[in-house]
Amino acid sequence: MNLAQYFQKSELIPAIIQENKTGEVLMLAYMNSESLQKTLETGYTWFYSRSRQELWNKGATSGHVQKVLSISADCDNDTLLITVEQTGPACHTGAKSCFFNKIELQVNEQQ
Amino acid sequence: MNLAQYFQKSELIPAIIQENKTGEVLMLAYMNSESLQKTLETGYTWFYSRSRQELWNKGATSGHVQKVLSISADCDNDTLLITVEQTGPACHTGAKSCFFNKIELQVNEQQ
Repeated sequence: MNLAQYFQKSELIPAIIQENKTGEVLMLAYMNSESLQKTLETGYTWFYSRSRQELWNKGATSGHVQKVLSISADCDNDTLLITVEQTGPACHTGAKSCFFNKIELQVNEQQ
Repeated sequence: MNLAQYFQKSELIPAIIQENKTGEVLMLAYMNSESLQKTLETGYTWFYSRSRQELWNKGATSGHVQKVLSISADCDNDTLLITVEQTGPACHTGAKSCFFNKIELQVNEQQ
């Protein structure tokens, strides 16, 4: 399969990880071509760590692996959406999802 | 509110747009500080178009606006998750969600 189409704009593509069972968005991480290839071959998520500059098999040390159920690219092939069966929490903080920092709207609702 | 914390790594932060009612992930787009500020103030999504290099009020011309219900940053403040009430399709192709290009796994399931 030609994966180059997903890396036209950048060497890294953002991958949204969504829990299949609940629809909850768990995290976003980046894949390079090699990590996407490993994800497709193994059926578990592999990412590219921008800070460590290396491939990263999610859950390899913690056991909190993500079994891939589906992968879809978006309309212009620059983002991936991956549904998974998550073992344990997805976030390194121990939270189920990484998205726990609420930002308050400043809308002055007149209604 | 100090938005600078969301733009430490980059001038643009990826924003995952999720339909509140269904949990469906609709699209991913990028915000700069100004578009995040406008989103917080107006309660509707504003993005920064990387190709056009300008602010973009989602749905301003098509009518397919996104009313913001919640915004959360992730554990390291480099991604946003925004739940919305979507009017019409989210994708410029007319599809409800931008994520319609399935990528097949290559896993050889022995079980």
